[in-house]
Amino acid sequence: VHATLELLALLLVGFELCMKLRWLGFHTFIRHKRTMVKTCVLLLQFVEAIVVLVRQTSHMRVTRALRPIFLVDCRYCGAVRRNLRQIFQSLPSFIDILLLLLFFMVIFAILGFCLFSTNTADPYFNSLENSLVSLFVLLTTANFPDVMMPAYSKNRWSCVFFIVYLSIELYFIMNLLLAVVFDTFNDVEKMKFKSLLLHKRSAIDHAFQLLVSRQRPMGVSLKQFDGLMRFYRPRMSARGRFLTFKALNTSGAPMLSLQDFYKFYEVIGLKWKPRRSREHWFDDLPHTAFLIFKGIHLVVKSKAFQYAMYVVVAINGVWILVETFKMNSGYSWSEFVPLSYIVFLTIYGVEVLLKIAGLGPLAYFSSGWNLFDLSVTVFAFLGLIALAFNMEPFYFIVVLRPFQLLRLFKIKQRYRNVLDTMFELFPRMASLGLTLIIFYYSFAIVGMEFFADVVYPNCCNTSTVADSYRQINKTYGNKTVLEEGYYYLNNFNNILSSFVTLFELTVVNNWYITMEGVTSMTSHWSRLYFMTFYIVTMVVMTIIVAFILDAFVFRMNYSRKNRDPVDKDENGIVFEVEVMRDEAVATLELYKQTSPTPHSLSSLTAVLQAMDKSGHTSCVYLGRRSRTKSDLSMKMYEEEIQEWYAEYSRECLPQGDENLNLDQNSPVTDPSPFQEHQPNSQCEHHSIN
Amino acid sequence: VHATLELLALLLVGFELCMKLRWLGFHTFIRHKRTMVKTCVLLLQFVEAIVVLVRQTSHMRVTRALRPIFLVDCRYCGAVRRNLRQIFQSLPSFIDILLLLLFFMVIFAILGFCLFSTNTADPYFNSLENSLVSLFVLLTTANFPDVMMPAYSKNRWSCVFFIVYLSIELYFIMNLLLAVVFDTFNDVEKMKFKSLLLHKRSAIDHAFQLLVSRQRPMGVSLKQFDGLMRFYRPRMSARGRFLTFKALNTSGAPMLSLQDFYKFYEVIGLKWKPRRSREHWFDDLPHTAFLIFKGIHLVVKSKAFQYAMYVVVAINGVWILVETFKMNSGYSWSEFVPLSYIVFLTIYGVEVLLKIAGLGPLAYFSSGWNLFDLSVTVFAFLGLIALAFNMEPFYFIVVLRPFQLLRLFKIKQRYRNVLDTMFELFPRMASLGLTLIIFYYSFAIVGMEFFADVVYPNCCNTSTVADSYRQINKTYGNKTVLEEGYYYLNNFNNILSSFVTLFELTVVNNWYITMEGVTSMTSHWSRLYFMTFYIVTMVVMTIIVAFILDAFVFRMNYSRKNRDPVDKDENGIVFEVEVMRDEAVATLELYKQTSPTPHSLSSLTAVLQAMDKSGHTSCVYLGRRSRTKSDLSMKMYEEEIQEWYAEYSRECLPQGDENLNLDQNSPVTDPSPFQEHQPNSQCEHHSIN
Repeated sequence: VHATLELLALLLVGFELCMKLRWLGFHTFIRHKRTMVKTCVLLLQFVEAIVVLVRQTSHMRVTRALRPIFLVDCRYCGAVRRNLRQIFQSLPSFIDILLLLLFFMVIFAILGFCLFSTNTADPYFNSLENSLVSLFVLLTTANFPDVMMPAYSKNRWSCVFFIVYLSIELYFIMNLLLAVVFDTFNDVEKMKFKSLLLHKRSAIDHAFQLLVSRQRPMGVSLKQFDGLMRFYRPRMSARGRFLTFKALNTSGAPMLSLQDFYKFYEVIGLKWKPRRSREHWFDDLPHTAFLIFKGIHLVVKSKAFQYAMYVVVAINGVWILVETFKMNSGYSWSEFVPLSYIVFLTIYGVEVLLKIAGLGPLAYFSSGWNLFDLSVTVFAFLGLIALAFNMEPFYFIVVLRPFQLLRLFKIKQRYRNVLDTMFELFPRMASLGLTLIIFYYSFAIVGMEFFADVVYPNCCNTSTVADSYRQINKTYGNKTVLEEGYYYLNNFNNILSSFVTLFELTVVNNWYITMEGVTSMTSHWSRLYFMTFYIVTMVVMTIIVAFILDAFVFRMNYSRKNRDPVDKDENGIVFEVEVMRDEAVATLELYKQTSPTPHSLSSLTAVLQAMDKSGHTSCVYLGRRSRTKSDLSMKMYEEEIQEWYAEYSRECLPQGDENLNLDQNSPVTDPSPFQEHQPNSQCEHHSIN
Repeated sequence: VHATLELLALLLVGFELCMKLRWLGFHTFIRHKRTMVKTCVLLLQFVEAIVVLVRQTSHMRVTRALRPIFLVDCRYCGAVRRNLRQIFQSLPSFIDILLLLLFFMVIFAILGFCLFSTNTADPYFNSLENSLVSLFVLLTTANFPDVMMPAYSKNRWSCVFFIVYLSIELYFIMNLLLAVVFDTFNDVEKMKFKSLLLHKRSAIDHAFQLLVSRQRPMGVSLKQFDGLMRFYRPRMSARGRFLTFKALNTSGAPMLSLQDFYKFYEVIGLKWKPRRSREHWFDDLPHTAFLIFKGIHLVVKSKAFQYAMYVVVAINGVWILVETFKMNSGYSWSEFVPLSYIVFLTIYGVEVLLKIAGLGPLAYFSSGWNLFDLSVTVFAFLGLIALAFNMEPFYFIVVLRPFQLLRLFKIKQRYRNVLDTMFELFPRMASLGLTLIIFYYSFAIVGMEFFADVVYPNCCNTSTVADSYRQINKTYGNKTVLEEGYYYLNNFNNILSSFVTLFELTVVNNWYITMEGVTSMTSHWSRLYFMTFYIVTMVVMTIIVAFILDAFVFRMNYSRKNRDPVDKDENGIVFEVEVMRDEAVATLELYKQTSPTPHSLSSLTAVLQAMDKSGHTSCVYLGRRSRTKSDLSMKMYEEEIQEWYAEYSRECLPQGDENLNLDQNSPVTDPSPFQEHQPNSQCEHHSIN
């Protein structure tokens, strides 16, 4: 049954691939690397599934480890694919340094074998293979003082061998590896940004050439722009299209010049809202209520209130610490709802209410820190309820109390920076984590195929790590104690255990115990699996480190360059557009001509109605979007960007112009090259890989 | 006796300090931080030594750990002082992140205590203190799977706690720490370079103002320049002074303009040599010999020869590997001088001879790689002699054979880069190592005072790590085997053992075994010592990592920016100066007027004699010096340097000019402000801290 199901799933994937083949044509299909790999894997699994069906027996099915390839090739895994590409791009330089590392390892293995193999008490260097494995494990420091001890007890100077080895391998070459990856990473990021930027610019150039009509070769009119937008962003409202045009149009002329048009991508993501004329949300309330809320607002905004809250949180923290310290062991939650818990929770609750009242719900919820405060308070409240109603499975919520203390970190600018960066990094980190999990999955499948059920309590008695797998009852005087080595828990019996085991291998410490245990129960080729896994995770981990390094150094450089810290203008990118009444009317007329369906214009008529209601002849709209890394990069590389543009226009534009002049009599509102724009061959090196 | 000797040494240091006090005056003395610290330490040790002398008993003498302060404050430890300063400069940001780290640790300790203390089989979380210690050790990953195992065996989901903890602390905050240190380091390096550069520039401005005479306010004549050089570099020969002037003088006028003069520091370190007209060293030999050497030269320079040597080295490497693998255990050197060893050694010897003959001894020895080849070959030869004459203690030389293989890394550009950078880094690395050793020394002294002789075989039976200290005879069937835990070797009994123990603590793996062992034999406050040591080494190690990262990323950026790799022009900085005969004569006349001792001019007369001999009317001299990091920085920061200069001249020059115009009638050859130049108060922020 299992095999049949699998065959069905494979058929589905195969069908999708066939559709793709028909869609793309054979040549494109062959040239598209990712699809080719997918096809090969599919064929392999297909053949295997049929073999399993025919033979009616299951066998070693390592190919299952390749399944994530299908997963990665979906629309939502773009970030993972990018990470994988980055890993592959930094691989060549990585491998170079890895070879250096392995080379020194071999030299030292020969040396170590020659020096220490005469010592029969030394199990680490008694053969060349053991010597190599010992030094490989030593590279991870997992067996450090132990591997030295037999030799050290014979001759004190033998420590020099290990100190030199670790200094070269661990402290020099491993850092070199990080430096190389960091450098490649940096470079790849910058190049990616550059090519994306130039790609956008060439798209804009192309679109501009297509949009200008012969009569007015210098600019794009609103009508043409609207046509473009309707294809490019079909969901954007008429008001949004009009405001975007206004935001681009800095000169005030009825046309967009090419210079205006270059800002297209900066403006396109903006969300438009009329600027509120009220300063506070409670300005429209009756006088008494206004005064009350005004008072609350002032209190909430005051420094004293903030610091009072910090003091409360700090006292709470000390309180929790002292309480936990006092009761020490023998803790049970149910009997224990301290008064202090309720008191502090009340204070936090009041704070939340005051803040919502003072700032208005909208302003309150737009700050990440406030959301964090609220969620912690709500969790604590839920914990209290859980305690009151004795719901055992929710007790863990009570334990989350100490997280309140995190609020203290708002005090210092540096911590705010760190935590903000942490949140900014989160999507990228998540995708890196996902990449790691995909690697884990593949290794877990292979591990389960080969090593399922090979370790169990009291196994591995032939290996040097037997102690860690022992489980025996020992009798001390009159009581029996179960002494456990516990390491049999690190097995590959099911996918969850495999993941935990692989995480332990990633952390590296004592990983050789798992390796030796499994090796002693299978063959010594199993070591290959563990060593490969170590190297793969080393690559991924180095990239994660390089990524974090890069993100923070970039941000710190940025705030140094622009003096004001990044989070000062935490509202992100803001554009302001003033709409005059007659303009809006004219636009409405224009839109009525081009689009026959009146409901699509409701957003624009709403603008007019609002103006009529308030009696103003103009109305200011604010367009907002959150700041992306590309905005930061734009500021960071300002000078270099000008160089890139200059270089780009030298290389590509003249040729582009010639091509495009021929197209000028094509329908001006055809935006398709904008969506599927292929850079002309001469400038192909700017396309995003 | 020991105390008396120490008192004597202290008196000596005290005497030196008194001299300094008289020399500098009281106010400067008080303000100089380093000297103040030294004085305090001296007083403390003085009092202590007297107490010891009076009481005639030795006691805990932790102050001995402060002794390195005297060592650091000597002339040769400038680099170490710089490192210490850098460490102190990055300390504030480091401590911020460290607090974040500790904060999360406390939160998780409370959480862990609440979650796992109900499990009586879990010794890691049974009290809040244990919980904290476990999580601190877990931060170093030293107890990783073990600390999780008891909880994991109870409930599989408890692994989430550990995975979250490690992800936040180890993989995020620790990398953040590195990022912050790296960033601070980068910034400090750049600022140091900037202040040094501006300091030099202000010194040059100052000197120029002093050197120009009222009659010729636009330039410095040779006579005045010569006067300066005689004070600034008393050992420089007359020829060197003249050539330096010529190198600065790009315009050809008899005067140095300020623009010329700005290059002073670039030119001052050059070593001058006449350009050799001969291309090869053997050009002057008789015809037959010339042809032979020419042939050798061509052979040695050919690609084929180089690759043949690489092949030989590779075969040698494989041979050694196979040989070592074949004999496996039971190795003894004396009976074993394989034929292959002699064959390969002969090949290498012939290669060295050919290269020396073909390139000439000078060219041969000026390349670091050739020196490496030679030394490895000589070592191998010495090893052979040691084998032949059966000199046991030198056998280890034979073992160094595999290092021949390092030569293979010359093939690839990247490895050459890496190894060259390694050599460039060496002085800095050595000073960092020295800094580390000074920290080690302090900690070793403290460790020896408190923990000497506390661990021994079969001690620590009350702790959880008793196994590692056990030494028992076990009988398996009819043979008795000594089972050893060996960890008693990691003690603080003498300074060498302490150093090895501290190195093991630096490597971190299993450090808690040493900690727990010592703790169980003393009090649990001993943990403070180990934790402090861990944090201190973490700081130093992070700085070492940041330094390596910085150096490599800088170099890679440099070679990317300048396209040509750094080692292409490996001759360093080269200046070419052509000296005309009449110029030399005129200079000689001038010098004869100013300096009455004729032997000081011998170098210049030698130039004239050489010209007379060869019959040329001019002679080209080459000035060389090795490239320093400052040269690289000059190229890297080219644009920023212009900005700095502009900013500097806006801020400081006008005021400087006013001051200096008054001095113009002072003796023009007085170079003292050049040597002891103090920047004027307004520009004091440019001075080197």
